[in-house]
Amino acid sequence: MRKTSRLKHLINSRNLEFLMEAHNGLSSKIVEETGFKGIWASGLSISAGLGVRDNNEASWTQILDVLEFMSDATSIPILLDGDTGYGNFNNARRLVAKLEQRNIAGVCIEDKLFPKTNSFINGQAQPLADIDEFCGKIKAMKDTQTDEDFMVVARVESFIAGWGLEETLRRAEAYHQAGVDAVLIHSHRSDISEIESFMKEWQGRLPVVIVPTKYYATPTKRFVDMGISVAIWANHNLRTSIAAMQKISKQIFQEERIANAESEIASLEEVFRLQRAEELQEAEQKYLPSGNRGS
Amino acid sequence: MRKTSRLKHLINSRNLEFLMEAHNGLSSKIVEETGFKGIWASGLSISAGLGVRDNNEASWTQILDVLEFMSDATSIPILLDGDTGYGNFNNARRLVAKLEQRNIAGVCIEDKLFPKTNSFINGQAQPLADIDEFCGKIKAMKDTQTDEDFMVVARVESFIAGWGLEETLRRAEAYHQAGVDAVLIHSHRSDISEIESFMKEWQGRLPVVIVPTKYYATPTKRFVDMGISVAIWANHNLRTSIAAMQKISKQIFQEERIANAESEIASLEEVFRLQRAEELQEAEQKYLPSGNRGS
Amino acid sequence: MRKTSRLKHLINSRNLEFLMEAHNGLSSKIVEETGFKGIWASGLSISAGLGVRDNNEASWTQILDVLEFMSDATSIPILLDGDTGYGNFNNARRLVAKLEQRNIAGVCIEDKLFPKTNSFINGQAQPLADIDEFCGKIKAMKDTQTDEDFMVVARVESFIAGWGLEETLRRAEAYHQAGVDAVLIHSHRSDISEIESFMKEWQGRLPVVIVPTKYYATPTKRFVDMGISVAIWANHNLRTSIAAMQKISKQIFQEERIANAESEIASLEEVFRLQRAEELQEAEQKYLPSGNRGS
Amino acid sequence: MRKTSRLKHLINSRNLEFLMEAHNGLSSKIVEETGFKGIWASGLSISAGLGVRDNNEASWTQILDVLEFMSDATSIPILLDGDTGYGNFNNARRLVAKLEQRNIAGVCIEDKLFPKTNSFINGQAQPLADIDEFCGKIKAMKDTQTDEDFMVVARVESFIAGWGLEETLRRAEAYHQAGVDAVLIHSHRSDISEIESFMKEWQGRLPVVIVPTKYYATPTKRFVDMGISVAIWANHNLRTSIAAMQKISKQIFQEERIANAESEIASLEEVFRLQRAEELQEAEQKYLPSGNRGS
Repeated sequence: MRKTSRLKHLINSRNLEFLMEAHNGLSSKIVEETGFKGIWASGLSISAGLGVRDNNEASWTQILDVLEFMSDATSIPILLDGDTGYGNFNNARRLVAKLEQRNIAGVCIEDKLFPKTNSFINGQAQPLADIDEFCGKIKAMKDTQTDEDFMVVARVESFIAGWGLEETLRRAEAYHQAGVDAVLIHSHRSDISEIESFMKEWQGRLPVVIVPTKYYATPTKRFVDMGISVAIWANHNLRTSIAAMQKISKQIFQEERIANAESEIASLEEVFRLQRAEELQEAEQKYLPSGNRGS
Repeated sequence: MRKTSRLKHLINSRNLEFLMEAHNGLSSKIVEETGFKGIWASGLSISAGLGVRDNNEASWTQILDVLEFMSDATSIPILLDGDTGYGNFNNARRLVAKLEQRNIAGVCIEDKLFPKTNSFINGQAQPLADIDEFCGKIKAMKDTQTDEDFMVVARVESFIAGWGLEETLRRAEAYHQAGVDAVLIHSHRSDISEIESFMKEWQGRLPVVIVPTKYYATPTKRFVDMGISVAIWANHNLRTSIAAMQKISKQIFQEERIANAESEIASLEEVFRLQRAEELQEAEQKYLPSGNRGS
Repeated sequence: MRKTSRLKHLINSRNLEFLMEAHNGLSSKIVEETGFKGIWASGLSISAGLGVRDNNEASWTQILDVLEFMSDATSIPILLDGDTGYGNFNNARRLVAKLEQRNIAGVCIEDKLFPKTNSFINGQAQPLADIDEFCGKIKAMKDTQTDEDFMVVARVESFIAGWGLEETLRRAEAYHQAGVDAVLIHSHRSDISEIESFMKEWQGRLPVVIVPTKYYATPTKRFVDMGISVAIWANHNLRTSIAAMQKISKQIFQEERIANAESEIASLEEVFRLQRAEELQEAEQKYLPSGNRGS
Repeated sequence: MRKTSRLKHLINSRNLEFLMEAHNGLSSKIVEETGFKGIWASGLSISAGLGVRDNNEASWTQILDVLEFMSDATSIPILLDGDTGYGNFNNARRLVAKLEQRNIAGVCIEDKLFPKTNSFINGQAQPLADIDEFCGKIKAMKDTQTDEDFMVVARVESFIAGWGLEETLRRAEAYHQAGVDAVLIHSHRSDISEIESFMKEWQGRLPVVIVPTKYYATPTKRFVDMGISVAIWANHNLRTSIAAMQKISKQIFQEERIANAESEIASLEEVFRLQRAEELQEAEQKYLPSGNRGS
């Protein structure tokens, strides 16, 4: 089954499904090996991994380069956290064409302005996109895709921006009419009350995706009960790698040796395994004359 | 002081100094914050992070793109693990020009053939570069640099390839005559005997760099006693991030929730701090009219 | 003298100076060999050369990649036609840092909105940037440059947008106060009347740059008399290459042979000369052992 | 019909067919509009356009970026002049995967060593690839393609290298057995005698492609009579654009005005037409709310 079709099934499944964050080829591979059915290519995590801010400091083609490595390293579908689509409808439809080429299964765009700021920074001060303009963007994206199962998800930022339930419903419905495949309702509260109020009124018109980064304490059972389609664990691989690298770097710096680190970290052989070194050795047997590495 | 000059001082210091591996902007920043004086841009780690093999699967300009993010995120010098220079002398001298532009302080090239294979995979079967050809490459690189403190380090692979001490000395001396700034003597033994035999004969003709990945149990004190200039902790940030991501991904996959993960990982605020979000907020105060995010 | 200093001198010279358009490494080299003192890296020409529209379809880092080839191929300064700076003040200041690294001597930004549309398409319908926001962008750029001679030129689009002389003067003066090094006054009239009206009021507060694409029939002597600093021949290498390629392609297609084309086009030897093949052959003599091409 | 299938038909057609060189998106578009059925993405022309030498100075991913623009701008198939495959079998099979993603219809690889030198520079001194190693590369490429019509063409350089007919036949047959879809027989003689001697012995075992750059005076009728499948006009768009840009640059430099140039070059409207500006204006009508350009 194509990656797009797999993401479509996942989003439209009757069960609550999960996407796990990755931000480069390596973390993507780990997400797949763990058993997850799909990957969230987080804009925050990708930019943090690169060493820049989540404010469109990396260009959209630099993000595309990261995605290509992620897609090549894995066989499960990837949903891109595509900010605002990196410009207007024309930039967004170009993005769709480029994502399809790199076998990315779908993209989520948010109703903010370019260049974006992360929703958890200064969220309330951020203006939202004009609804009609955003709907035009959605239409242009859906008209551009050549794989009918490519997914476009609209992320509604009105709770974050302080506009409340009514505006959130109005936007979600407008994006629905414009043709999106799902809505992602974002909230920065530490409880799930905003999402809950939305779900009651929404009544399953389209699948709903959530990102429980701030309301992490809410039991997953409640997401199921509300009828949420997909929950995204949005930045945890990045955050654990930060903690781990800070710890090991500090330990090695202080001890001036690596002997004590050896047992806590992946072995070199595990690195080679993740890189699929064995497949290359087999291929060398097959394609190289004996004693020749080729040039 | 320029990054190149800082690396030069570090390599020529009388004390044993350390370089810590990084493979993207984020890990580079962590290495700097920890207190290390320099960064080892590991070819293995960078390729593994991207999700490809350490066999020149990523192009040399894709490596350059990673390095640019690493350099932009930090103020300490970076020494690139530059494989074979990615081709012949002409490719290698182009590399030097491009590294200088991106403020990379130096590059280490190894006397193997393009495309390379990691030294810890099937090392003994790997043919070495012709000495004269490799010396020509070194000369071309030294003639190309415009910053006189840019460092070119020659990595001698003859121990790994099974040629023993005599060939290692012959190569190191040839590279010395060709103009390198230091030699990196590589060994895949679990003890330091090969390095030790070299140091006895070498007699400090040039600074010596080592990578104790396999002989990690050797006390650092012995490196000092032998007169080693730089020890490189070559892949430990990558390896700890693998272990950490595998663990957290598995935990979240099994528990279907993130609440228990929260305490073990870096906070969102720590992510924003590493990205220097605050500097941007201050800059917005300075450069944006009130109530306007700009476009 | 640094490329930045050469561009600064050129802009501040008492004589009328000229910049000639180039859009890739090859055309840049030709501009330099012809004798021009500087290159205009035209956004229209670069995008057309790539095969996309002049609406920020190519990402800013794709433009940067083109510029790097242009700069590496030449020794005269390049002034980038940098659209709106590719986003807000933060994108624009990142651009400055990246241009300096690639040895680009200056950038011209225009007071329109991202994504831009070429000024000669539907110009009057295009909204202009908020003046305060644009001035903040200029300040951020000037504060970012590390080479004091790096040039930031502000392109005033108010004549094109139909706002007339008063608004043009108001904007030019505001940008002047914000710290730009020159203003580019753009007009799509087929005569020079708009520019003339501006020059009378401006009184040389800052150097003025013009782009006479539409008023090409105006004698250059009049630019001198008005006190114009720099005239940009903005897209003529692109346009002549289009005409030439259309002609030769048609001829070869129809004749089904190349014999008749041979005399009208550059020889293969001229291609090799422009690529500096000879320097490489000399370097091979110097750096390669005899009979070895290296790897 | 897919681009790959169209190239396959063209190569296997009973008639002599032609490929015309292009080196960026713009020239590709012109080749298509002229009526040609396919494009030759010349390594020499692409490198010259970028401003570098035809010696793998541009990385293989930089070439890929150029190809992506070329493919996006056109609907006819592109055959890449892929040098040696940019490394060994593993690099070459990665290339195939990346070309398929970017909708490139086929690739021609030559039996030389990485990094390559243009065949018309110092050809006779160039060593050839080991036959077994090159056959392994071909097999790896054919095993990698997922579109069964993707074309792999083997370019035999033994005439150029001075090895004569027998070696050329031996190599062509070996590559045939290894699975290539056609052979390109290259010659730097100013007459077609080498090609003719080959065709007599070859007896149509596989389609034969030629590049008559040096024997341009040979009537095309003779190619037909010999049973050549495809003739490539390999660098003429590049070479005419050089002549044209040198001429117009010189004229404008000397006259210090553009008025006389105007009539000889493509109009601005023609530039916009080639960029398909009209499609965007229509799309703006469709996707943008009135009076809003989006962001």
